[in-house]
Parts: sequence; C-alpha cells; structure tokens
Amino acid sequence: MQRVEKRVVIVGASAAGLRCAARLARLEPTWEITVIEARSVFSVAACGLPYALSGDVPDPEALRQTADGTLRDVDYFAAVKGVTVRAGTPAARIEADHRRLRLGRGETLEYDELVLATGARPKPAPRQPEHPRVHTFHTFADLEPLVAGLKGRRIGSVVVVGAGLCGCELAEAFAVTWGAEVTLLEAAAHPLPMLLDAEVGALAAHALKENDVELRTGARVDRIEATEGGVTVHANAAEGPTEVAADAVVVALGVAPAVELAQSAGVELGVTGGIAVDERLHTSVPHIWACGDCIELVHAVSGCRCQLPLGSLANRHGRLLADILAGGSERLTPVAGAAGLKIFDTNVAAVGLTRAQAVAQGLPARSAWLCGHDRAHYYPEAQEIALQLVYEPGSERILGVQAAGPGEVHKRIDTATQLLLRGARLADLAAIEHAYAPPYAPAIEPLATLAMVAQNQERGLDAVSPLSPLSNARLLDVRHPHESQARPVPANNVVLLPQAHLRERARDLDPGEWLVVCERGTRAAEVARWLSTRSLTARYLGGGLRWRGLAGDPAFVGDER
Amino acid sequence: MQRVEKRVVIVGASAAGLRCAARLARLEPTWEITVIEARSVFSVAACGLPYALSGDVPDPEALRQTADGTLRDVDYFAAVKGVTVRAGTPAARIEADHRRLRLGRGETLEYDELVLATGARPKPAPRQPEHPRVHTFHTFADLEPLVAGLKGRRIGSVVVVGAGLCGCELAEAFAVTWGAEVTLLEAAAHPLPMLLDAEVGALAAHALKENDVELRTGARVDRIEATEGGVTVHANAAEGPTEVAADAVVVALGVAPAVELAQSAGVELGVTGGIAVDERLHTSVPHIWACGDCIELVHAVSGCRCQLPLGSLANRHGRLLADILAGGSERLTPVAGAAGLKIFDTNVAAVGLTRAQAVAQGLPARSAWLCGHDRAHYYPEAQEIALQLVYEPGSERILGVQAAGPGEVHKRIDTATQLLLRGARLADLAAIEHAYAPPYAPAIEPLATLAMVAQNQERGLDAVSPLSPLSNARLLDVRHPHESQARPVPANNVVLLPQAHLRERARDLDPGEWLVVCERGTRAAEVARWLSTRSLTARYLGGGLRWRGLAGDPAFVGDER
Repeated sequence: MQRVEKRVVIVGASAAGLRCAARLARLEPTWEITVIEARSVFSVAACGLPYALSGDVPDPEALRQTADGTLRDVDYFAAVKGVTVRAGTPAARIEADHRRLRLGRGETLEYDELVLATGARPKPAPRQPEHPRVHTFHTFADLEPLVAGLKGRRIGSVVVVGAGLCGCELAEAFAVTWGAEVTLLEAAAHPLPMLLDAEVGALAAHALKENDVELRTGARVDRIEATEGGVTVHANAAEGPTEVAADAVVVALGVAPAVELAQSAGVELGVTGGIAVDERLHTSVPHIWACGDCIELVHAVSGCRCQLPLGSLANRHGRLLADILAGGSERLTPVAGAAGLKIFDTNVAAVGLTRAQAVAQGLPARSAWLCGHDRAHYYPEAQEIALQLVYEPGSERILGVQAAGPGEVHKRIDTATQLLLRGARLADLAAIEHAYAPPYAPAIEPLATLAMVAQNQERGLDAVSPLSPLSNARLLDVRHPHESQARPVPANNVVLLPQAHLRERARDLDPGEWLVVCERGTRAAEVARWLSTRSLTARYLGGGLRWRGLAGDPAFVGDER
Repeated sequence: MQRVEKRVVIVGASAAGLRCAARLARLEPTWEITVIEARSVFSVAACGLPYALSGDVPDPEALRQTADGTLRDVDYFAAVKGVTVRAGTPAARIEADHRRLRLGRGETLEYDELVLATGARPKPAPRQPEHPRVHTFHTFADLEPLVAGLKGRRIGSVVVVGAGLCGCELAEAFAVTWGAEVTLLEAAAHPLPMLLDAEVGALAAHALKENDVELRTGARVDRIEATEGGVTVHANAAEGPTEVAADAVVVALGVAPAVELAQSAGVELGVTGGIAVDERLHTSVPHIWACGDCIELVHAVSGCRCQLPLGSLANRHGRLLADILAGGSERLTPVAGAAGLKIFDTNVAAVGLTRAQAVAQGLPARSAWLCGHDRAHYYPEAQEIALQLVYEPGSERILGVQAAGPGEVHKRIDTATQLLLRGARLADLAAIEHAYAPPYAPAIEPLATLAMVAQNQERGLDAVSPLSPLSNARLLDVRHPHESQARPVPANNVVLLPQAHLRERARDLDPGEWLVVCERGTRAAEVARWLSTRSLTARYLGGGLRWRGLAGDPAFVGDER
C-alpha cells in the first residue's frame, strides 16, 4: 500500500462534490478522499428530474447512470473512481480548530482539507405547510410521490408556485404528459424574470398559455392551505387577493445556499448569503474550501457577487477545486450566467443581465430587438427566433442577450456568452464570425444583425419595444399590400405605404412623428432611416409585428415561418 | 434634388458588392451609387444553389428573394435601396489615372471611389473541355442545365470532381433527390481536406459512402473527355491511372479570385493571388477598394494571408467597406475560417487550422479527440458528435476545432470560433460557460471536455488517433462485458478487464506498453492514467471505438446513440 499523503473530506455528493472527488482521486491517487452525503440516493443528474417526471426520460434510474449505463453508486465510486462515498450520513458540525468533521452519531472524521459542496435547498413559500400534497422538486426523492399521485389519478390539478426554470419545466411535464390542469403563479409580470425582460418573457408566457397552462403573473403567494381533500394557494395579485384550489402544489421559488454547516465553523458568508470564497475557492477558515450551489460567484457583467445555482457551473467548479487542491494554478473566474430551457416547443436561453437587472444595478441600459430566422430564410426548415440585446449606451458594452422562439436559440447564447465574458462591445458582436451554411444559419448570423440594429440605434435610428401599444401613435405600415391585408394592424391611425413606393410617395406624408411598422423590423428600420433624412421624425417597431405574433397577439399570429 | 456628393461605382452584384451598395446608400443617401454586373441574373444566394438542385428549396427563385418574398431585381434595388444596378454590363478595364471605368461598348463611367467586388470563378480541372456535359456549379445559370438533364433522364450518372464544400453538397443532391449514380473524386486522402484532418474526414467519407456515393480519394483528375454520348474522367490514383465514365461531370475544385479588372488598373495582388487590401479594404491604387471573394484575408490563427471565399465573410466585408467609405473607423480584422455543411444526415463544421495545415505552416501541433453526446446523454434525443481539437503544445494555444456526427456540431464551432479569434488557450476552452439544459447540452459542454482531454494529454496522458491500427498493440479492453461481447475488438491481442475490476486485477497485467480502449475514450483515459501511477506504460484510443463506428468501421457500427 502506498502511504496516504492527505485526507480530503468532501461534504455533499452532488455534481460539485463528486466531480471534485473523482478528479482529485485521479490527480492524487495516494490521497484518501471521502465524500459525506446525508441522502442515501446521490449522484443524480438533478437537471434531468423534470424530464423523468415528464417521461421523456422513461427510467429515472438513467439519471444515476453514466453514458455507458453504469450505476453511480457507492461501489462505482470505490471501484472506478477510488473515492469513498458515505451515503445516508449527515454531517453535524465542523470543529475547525481540530480539523474534524463531526458526523451524526458522535462519530468524527479528521481531515487535512475539507470541501463544502453542500448545495442549496428549495426556498419555501410564505406559510408553506408540511403536508403530502405540498411538494418541492429538488431531489430524486421528490419525484416518486408526484409520479405516484399522477399515475394513481390522485393528482389531476396542480398549482406550480414560481415560473422560473424549474417551474416552467414542471408546468410542461404536468400538462403534456399527465394532462393535468396546471396553474402557474409568478410574482413578476412575466415568466423567467431572472433571465428575461418583458419582451422575450411574452414569448415564454405565450408558450405556456397556448399549451393550456393557466399562467397568472403578478401573483405573489401569501399562504398555502392543505387538507386531505386538496390544497388552496392564496396569493396577492394586482386585482386583489386570489386563491387557487388544486390536488397538489409544487413550490418552485428557486433555491437558497445550504450554509449551516459552514456557519458551524465560522465560515464567512457573502453579501448574497452564499459562502464567500476567494479565487482559489478557499473560504475564510483555513483548510476549508467550497464549491457548487452553496457559494457566491462574481458576475462578469455587473462585477457584483451573485448566486447562480446551475449544474454546469457546479460541475466546472468542482473540477476546478480539485485542480487547485492538487497544486494547480487555475483560478475561479467571473461567470456570465448563461442558462436555458425548453418550454413546450419554444426554445429559451439568455446570458448576462436583463435590462431590468441592469437598471436595478444602476447601469444605463438600452435594448435592441430582432425577429429573424435561425437558418437561411429560404431553407425549408428555417424557424423564427426573437432576440433581445441589452447594452450600455456610450460605451456600447454588451450587458446581456435573450432569445426565444421555435428556432435554434441556444447556439446564439453560447456564442454570445464567450463575448460577454470578455467585455465585448457592439462592434465585436457585429463582426462575429460563424460556420455558415444554409441549413444552420443565415449568411449574416442573427447575433451580428442584432448588434447592427443596436449600432444603428446608437447612431439615431430608434426602435420602440415590440410590445409598445400601437393605438396612440401615427403608424406607417410599409409591408406589402398582401401582408397588410392578411394581418392588418388593428388601429385607426394607420397609413399604408409599401416600402417599394416610399421614395415616390413620401412627400405625401404629413410632417410630425411616425411609428414605422413591418413584419420583422428590417424594412421599417430602413424606411425610418430614410424618412429621417427627409426631415420627418420616425421611429420603428423593434422586432416587427411578427414578434407580437410569436408573443401570442391574436392580430398577428400567422402562418409565416 | 439634393446635390450628389460622391459617385461610387461598384463592380459585382453579389453578396459583397450589393451589401456594400445598399449599406452605403443608407448611410449616405445623397451619394450616387452604381453597381456594374456582367450577368443578367444577380443577387442570388449562391450558397443555396445546392439546395435548389436537391429540391430542398423547391423554387430556385427563392434564392433571389428577401425574407418577405420580394424579388431582388433592378427595380427593387432602385426603389427600396436607392442603388442603380446595371445588369448584363461587363466592365472592360479601369483607367485609374482618370478615375474612369471603361464598360463594354466604349462607354465609360466616372467615379470618385471604385469598389471591386468581382468575386471568384471556378477553378478548372486539367484539360477540362468546354462541352454541354461538362459543368461547373457556381452561378444561377449553372443550375438549369443540370436540373433539365436530371429531369429529362439524360443525366443518370455524374462524376463530381472535388470533395470540398460544394462537391459534397452536390453529391448529396444528385444521389438523394435524383437517384443518380454519383462518383466523387478527391485528390486528397479524405473529403474536405481544407476543413478536416483524416480522423474527422473519415466520418465525412462514411456519410458519403453509406448513402451510395462512390467516393474515390487520392484520385487526382488528369483530363476530362466529353462526347455526345457521355464523359470520361481520367485520374491518377495511388494504384495507377483510373477512369470513370458517366453522363455528366461537375468540376467543383474550388474557386480562384477574379482579378483581371483589378490588374488592368495595376492593383497589386497578394501572395495567394487575391487582391491585396489594407485593413481599410483599400487596394494599392488610390480610390480603388475591394471586398468579397476577390480579396486576400489574414488568418487569425496562422497570421498568414489566405483566401476564404465564404458567403458569410463576403456579406460582412461588404458592409464593413460601406462603413469605411462613409467615414467610419471600423477596420478589417483577421478571420478564423469557420465553415460547415450538411452531408446527408451528418453535420460537419470546423474552424481554424487542421493539424495537417498547421504542420505545413511549420507550427507544432497535436490533436485531442472526443466522442460525446450533443445533449445530456440520458436525454432521448441525444446524438453522438465526434470532436477533434488541434493545439500547439507548450503554449497550449488552440489552433483549430473540427466536428462531425449526427448531433449538433455547428453550435460548438460557432462557440469555439469566438475563442480562436481571441487567441484562446486550452484553459479558456476548458472553462467555457454555456447555456446548459438537458435538451441542448450536457452539463459539461463537450468543447470543454475536449479541452480537458488535451490538458490531460499535455500532462502525460497520451491518446492515439481513433483510426490507429489495433492489430500491432497490446490492447486492454476496459468496457463492460456486454459491450465487449456486442462489438468485440477484431484482434488477437486483447485482454478484457472491465474498469470496475481494474483496481483488484491490475497486478495480473504484464508490464510493458498497453493501449487501453473503451467505447468513447473516457474510461480508457481514466484507466490509462491509473495504470501509469502503477508503473505501467499505457496510452489510450482517443475518441474510443465509437469513433471508428461513426467512421464506418464495420466491427464497431452499432445501435448506440
């Protein structure tokens, strides 16, 4: 036997802790690595749980298996990874002075280095009772009672509290697979407020509603009542108190870092309540390190501390910590907060700050919008995507990008993420290079076009939000006559002037302010720019009327691709 | 009427020239902008031509239309863009001293600024005759005779010369839509040698072959004979001269910049034969500018001059030149050469240098391979992708990324492109952030995993090429028994030792050198690393046996996702 050089104890056998453990065992095969985990079932791909609920992943055990079908249990970690996992073993407290972790039944574990990968826990709703009809959805154990209730027809209606990533995914699973009546309550004015501004949020809202999810925004839950017969969720909405009755409720208000164990050692927390770490993932207490959902990160755009409990980051930071513990010079870098999800057939993704978040942090912020195609527009499988750019006027620094639609949006967000992490400006995004071929992208990547829209705006060509009211502006509809006829703007104040006739008929236009509209914003922008050289005041509807169609405005829902 | 402040003449009405013209007319509405074009049909989305041939785009006229269905003809450019296009008007020569462009019939056109957007022309094959059965595929006019021949059953067999982007797309169109017998001749050892090394090229080759394209690599065309009855293509191959008879031949050997007009003005050419421009897209002659396929670019990775006749770059640089002519401070920046295509159901994309190109340019280069999934492996729609990274040992600078497979690869290449343009190292790629959700990506983005494979290699964990011969190594197969049974390695020198039994049975292994194999390379890498800590010499098969399966090796083609 080789001599054990170091004893590393890791608390938490989810993505961050296990990734750290396995990597460290590879880098330092002579170290003794022990992972302590309160739950008996561990190493679950938690982001896959909604797809196990929906049945897209038919066997939930797949979430506990490697790509080659091996179950990631205690034996696997011992035999394959060289890591001891002690499942079903809660950690009680840390005795940092003695470098000891005290376990449940009086047992202690000595360490040279201690890693806190304690993760996060669901945030409760106000006055949320403990009751079999009141669920959270965070662990493998949360799956079974819901599936059993749905299968046994004891759950035919559900209230989901919170339209965040998890809430939206749950709403889809309940509605599509189980045909349940779903009410989705969200305190903000639109779904996914952490990711999306109102304009793109409207597309997410429409995706939910057109699939029979009863979405109630602006509804802040006040209390939950549960009886043997069902649940009643009480909420405060703009129009006054409201209540929803159902067979079950799932609270999906996000998570809060699990920091009690850290606090038992006097580990400092940061401003957001997560464990504060330095760029080596070291805490304020010697020999105690932390990674995963329990820590605070630095946001690349705002420079502020933030919490981003995302599986992608937990995996990455677990591995990073192993490299650091093994003596590597790698460092924790700021994150841009890229995230995404599928809501029925609508793809949604975003990175960076929303305009609302930027403004709340005191950053000046403007938006630009684009409704384009994900592939060459003539390619038969081309689909529409709606993109919103948030940027800082003046510096033209990009603050965030949001995207939604039936088309491919995750590629755009992954690409934009690399630029946001590097402090890119509009000019960088406008000059973006991409692997162009008609089945995959237009010749000018929509991200680049989006940046050009913003650049034009900074040079005086102003767009108004795609969701702006159309009734109190003088509208100039520059679409083809057949388009204006198929989907007329339902307002009295519309002048029809197809773009092809602009130059000959512009002199007939009254002076004063015009709002130019077309299908996707492109033609309207061209016309608005030209009018402004003719001493007319003109702005245009960003993203065009198609954006409103994608957001469910009945006047503009159409058969366009 | 407003006074004309400047007369700009642009030669060439394809992507670069027209994008420049339209943008300039918006920025400088009082300038007089004239585009001269030899052809009568212009503003064609040329990259869409293969899809018009295949019928994926049912009406070829769609390639001449905007997203809102407007035909981009002379009237459109006049009325909507404020640009005069003179189609069917060849430019004869430039009289730079007088700032005059001489047209065909003695007419001249005076300019203040002249833009050369003369594009490129198909490179001919050696001894390529002019004959109705001998085709190129570059313009709208090239489409009709092929479609007519195929429809009229006069073309039932085709030789395509050159397995580049266009050649591969053509082969698919001929085979799938028209059921033609297709022979694809390529001088290099694998298809797409400008984009791919042998390992990823093998996937492209398999995609062609399994769809009944007769691919002959290492076959350099020597001459083409055409008669009324058919064509015969003579080529030199490793095994000696060969000839292929067919009803028609399409020469798709790439394009060469069209520079005759530039030379008539004494405009300097660069080392590659394209028009030399500075970072303002200005040529060596005052008041003459150039953009599009006719110019030379600087490669971001090699720093060398190069030609990259890609529609995405032509569009971008046309717009850039308009900004510059209007007084903007934008500058031409190096390009990474991102490109992609679809070959039947295989997605292919790449950026940067291949290992072969890097070596040819004197750069030290190593490869790393990964066979992974495009989504969470448990997600039902997950598909396999094969990734190859080319990097510089020591500096760990990334030189190129190649990808192919049934899964999503273009997202990876677009993302990697942003890093290559910024001189990224392995550590940057390993720390990549992405919008993770199981329907779109694994928790650790395959690009990051690929970089980690390379990092491990740089720290001593060596992979061998996925296509290495397996017969002259001592193989250690660490797969599950059911995997080894389903797809055994067809060699005599194989020891089976499932990874789960490694630690207990490793002492039975003979000392000496082992080549460890598994399905995707991951387990083999772990085992090889562990063995090396036990004083055994071990390398592993990069990308695993699945890579060979994706490349068509009959021993490993299987039903794995």
